[in-house]
Amino acid sequence: MTNTTYEQLGDLKRRSILGAIPAKWRLQNPIPQADELRDVTGAYIQQFLTPQEIEITETDAAGITEQTTSGSWTAVEVAEAFCHRAALAHQLVNCLHEVFFDAAIEDAKRLDAYFAEHKKPIGPLHGLPISLKDQFHVKGVETTMGYVGWIGTFQGKKDDPRRATFESELVKELRNLGAVLYCKTSVPATLMAGETVNNIISYTWNPKNRLLSSGGSSGGEGALIALKGSPGGFGTDIGGSIRIPAVFNGVFGIRPSSGRMPYEGAANSIDGQNMILSVVGPLATTARSLTLLFKTVLSQQPWYHDPLVLELPWRADVEERTRALIRKSADGSPSLAFAIMRHDGMVRPHPPIARAVEIVEQTLKRLGHKVTQNLKGQGVIEWKPPAHQIGIDIFGRVCVADGGADIAHHLGLSGEPKSLQCIVGEGIPHMSALEIAALNVEKRQYQKLYMDYWNSTAEITGTGRPVDGVICPCAPHAAVIPHKYAHVGYTAFVNLLDYTSVVFPVTQADKKVDVPEPKDDFLSEIDKIVHEQYDPEMYDGAPAGLQIVGRRLEEEKMLTLADYISQEVSLHSGISQN
Amino acid sequence: MTNTTYEQLGDLKRRSILGAIPAKWRLQNPIPQADELRDVTGAYIQQFLTPQEIEITETDAAGITEQTTSGSWTAVEVAEAFCHRAALAHQLVNCLHEVFFDAAIEDAKRLDAYFAEHKKPIGPLHGLPISLKDQFHVKGVETTMGYVGWIGTFQGKKDDPRRATFESELVKELRNLGAVLYCKTSVPATLMAGETVNNIISYTWNPKNRLLSSGGSSGGEGALIALKGSPGGFGTDIGGSIRIPAVFNGVFGIRPSSGRMPYEGAANSIDGQNMILSVVGPLATTARSLTLLFKTVLSQQPWYHDPLVLELPWRADVEERTRALIRKSADGSPSLAFAIMRHDGMVRPHPPIARAVEIVEQTLKRLGHKVTQNLKGQGVIEWKPPAHQIGIDIFGRVCVADGGADIAHHLGLSGEPKSLQCIVGEGIPHMSALEIAALNVEKRQYQKLYMDYWNSTAEITGTGRPVDGVICPCAPHAAVIPHKYAHVGYTAFVNLLDYTSVVFPVTQADKKVDVPEPKDDFLSEIDKIVHEQYDPEMYDGAPAGLQIVGRRLEEEKMLTLADYISQEVSLHSGISQN
Repeated sequence: MTNTTYEQLGDLKRRSILGAIPAKWRLQNPIPQADELRDVTGAYIQQFLTPQEIEITETDAAGITEQTTSGSWTAVEVAEAFCHRAALAHQLVNCLHEVFFDAAIEDAKRLDAYFAEHKKPIGPLHGLPISLKDQFHVKGVETTMGYVGWIGTFQGKKDDPRRATFESELVKELRNLGAVLYCKTSVPATLMAGETVNNIISYTWNPKNRLLSSGGSSGGEGALIALKGSPGGFGTDIGGSIRIPAVFNGVFGIRPSSGRMPYEGAANSIDGQNMILSVVGPLATTARSLTLLFKTVLSQQPWYHDPLVLELPWRADVEERTRALIRKSADGSPSLAFAIMRHDGMVRPHPPIARAVEIVEQTLKRLGHKVTQNLKGQGVIEWKPPAHQIGIDIFGRVCVADGGADIAHHLGLSGEPKSLQCIVGEGIPHMSALEIAALNVEKRQYQKLYMDYWNSTAEITGTGRPVDGVICPCAPHAAVIPHKYAHVGYTAFVNLLDYTSVVFPVTQADKKVDVPEPKDDFLSEIDKIVHEQYDPEMYDGAPAGLQIVGRRLEEEKMLTLADYISQEVSLHSGISQN
Repeated sequence: MTNTTYEQLGDLKRRSILGAIPAKWRLQNPIPQADELRDVTGAYIQQFLTPQEIEITETDAAGITEQTTSGSWTAVEVAEAFCHRAALAHQLVNCLHEVFFDAAIEDAKRLDAYFAEHKKPIGPLHGLPISLKDQFHVKGVETTMGYVGWIGTFQGKKDDPRRATFESELVKELRNLGAVLYCKTSVPATLMAGETVNNIISYTWNPKNRLLSSGGSSGGEGALIALKGSPGGFGTDIGGSIRIPAVFNGVFGIRPSSGRMPYEGAANSIDGQNMILSVVGPLATTARSLTLLFKTVLSQQPWYHDPLVLELPWRADVEERTRALIRKSADGSPSLAFAIMRHDGMVRPHPPIARAVEIVEQTLKRLGHKVTQNLKGQGVIEWKPPAHQIGIDIFGRVCVADGGADIAHHLGLSGEPKSLQCIVGEGIPHMSALEIAALNVEKRQYQKLYMDYWNSTAEITGTGRPVDGVICPCAPHAAVIPHKYAHVGYTAFVNLLDYTSVVFPVTQADKKVDVPEPKDDFLSEIDKIVHEQYDPEMYDGAPAGLQIVGRRLEEEKMLTLADYISQEVSLHSGISQN
């Protein structure tokens, strides 16, 4: 890299991404400025597509596989439609790091030939395009993870034979299932940020409101899926990196507990840090598509190929028991109980998010579930857990355990600066083995306290069991104004506890309804800052979703509940889920 | 501790343990020297017991619960019998740290009263005496873990309110199940040793051959259970600490994968070190008793009380599938395949252990299982995995990651010296967070290599699946001559991989059969040392067992296979399993 600056290298790579988009799919005219046209989803992006492309790309992953596995749609036509729409999405919001449409069309052709010969699909995801966060290695394709210094290398190492030949375990499994891989999506360099910004693609904007962030670190996934340039993809989450982009972009996402989805062979930040494990999980436009992706990956028995995956196949019995509880409640005998966490004791959410909580709470009450502590419908089951401040403090120390050394090394490869959004600071002392062990003990003790609290709710639910799920915000704001992400506590506590969380859309910020309320009783200094940053005009139109949090390894239950709740919310609010 | 030496404090504690034994159960005459009478099990210890006490104490845990849960035996008579026999055992080999027989009898009386009132047992372990390694906290009882500096404290902390009031999660669950707790068993201070030696009880001898060690770190458990002073108990294992005492003393033991048995609230060495997790598991006189203990603890749903336990109830379907494979093989269609690891590429086992491998290999062949690669019965499925040297090197670095600081701190509380047997050395540099992360990556890569190797055996088993289990030594020697434990590689590789392993007895060292063989092709320097240390005269009579190693979280399968194989071995060799 002699004499070439990181700006030059980043610029070259940025132009090569654009250059990989076929000329026929390049936008000829400049797109409107964000302040003229915030929302580029829906009608705006549709103008560049044929009716057939719109039909295909606006079908969810579960719906697409119905068509492709039955032979109604060919893999090639589906792949082309998504390649086209992804190409447009990237030009609108900078959401891609890698574009490999030619390889995708070749793969799709092979799938079609297989179907023609065998009269059956190759697997349950036959012909389904899947996007991947730029941590997964795909043969013939680069992985930069947003680092300029990784361009032309394998994870920053020059002359590593795995460069452009190696595939991550998840990628192999998706291919076995019949998925078509066609693009990799943008991330913030370091991965440790709630906005997606790097020195290659610059900034990934929120397609529902381009004044705002698409979130991070799986920001490209969130933005691409919201624009329906992908029916579903895979991200990773160590502090909210799947859920933040999912909720900011109005799509679904799951942060499973560690040990369910294969991370083997993927690039990572501070690889080997195992106090809080980053996890892989899908994002998609519907909850049923999340379930499809989750379940089909499990069908590949990843526990035989990834040492960190647990032998836990999809538990159909848990799914069925959850459905039975839903039916029982519908029949008038409340058998599911939900707690509501309006705020985390540190920062109160902005009005759009508070309203989303209210909508879900009312929906659950209407459906006859236990959300209240007494028969008069008074005294909602408020989630009052052990202080989140303690948990978030532990989380923060885990993130900087290596003193930022890993990040500094990879930024140093090109000399690029760290983005201001990175939550890992400077000049932090390196922790020793004994300090790490002590921190692990602190973490375990907090997990134990939280677990005991969860158990204790059995006394107030009236179902004989503790609460089935906690409804809570994912962030204090609907998306976020660039540089204003001040509090990741709403997502990070789930990682610390290794709980399961599914994000679902609820509503969107509306300046007419979500008026700022004057306040002077702040929970903390950050609460005051966040409160003052609420700007109804800026946030107008931004997606406002929530998460449902379950206990460790409750993925089957949480996916089933999120599907149910989000459909009920959607039916009564008129918000489309797809 | 002003002016009181660690020797004085240790001596005081040692005498207080003996003092807690009722006078009626104290041995009046000196016992013979070890070189006059090696074996104090069987007839020797029986002379001090009544026929009824012998009948009760020589019944296995599964058999005892049949009697106690049906009301045939009272909890009090069973508790008294085991208290008596445990008292004798301690006087013979120094295997106890804590004796609380009075509390046990009180608990047993309550159980009998419950049964009398309700005509049913309180739980599946109603009236079953259970011994506990001295890491578990029991109310009213001290935990020293072998450290003189912990006497009169809670884990080394003076004035900690948990002292003598707190109970570990496992202890609570055992009480819920109806078990009777009556003693805690000896460990080496630091836990990091394959022999049980400390400055309180001094040395725990092997009851089958008192010239040898009972192993460690759950050495007291192994010795007590071999003497039938306990029908079963719980130990912990980070490098072999359940399996070494189990195999040295000729009993059964399981090292489950991490996340199955509750460790919550137990004392530990280097607590919070989470690169390789120490795990809890039972030891017992029969495999079916191991299963009983394992299964009943799971019935308590420990995953709701211990944040590190996985929601994995006993999988009866796995047990049933394993039994079906056993039946199918018995019907002449070989459906189970076993690999044999004669040595680990680093150290060859002594003749008694090599013979034990041969016995099991012949048994499996006789039973019609796949142990060979071709139909002529030639070419045994040899286990030739990725070099164990690599794995053991990683294991070693994990053990000393904190530079021995935790151990030094706890020894320092009393100023006592570290035993020579402790595998954690001196003057080791402390690892940093980044080094730990790198070590975790090395470990994961080794696990992946091993996993891929295991998968690859599907090509040679003829069952269509990889091998179902690996038969291998637990140590190069049958028990060990004090200070001669030079190689823990046979157990530690299982911890590094987080695999499941069940130890079962096979035979015993016999100086007439197990003659030394001259050798000059050594695998390593340690191989030579270990070879030269074989002394047929010294080892004569020592138990020689093996382990069956399965993949991660295969506890149901391995317990079922160990039960089956050990019974078959026993039937044909005349060695009693109980």
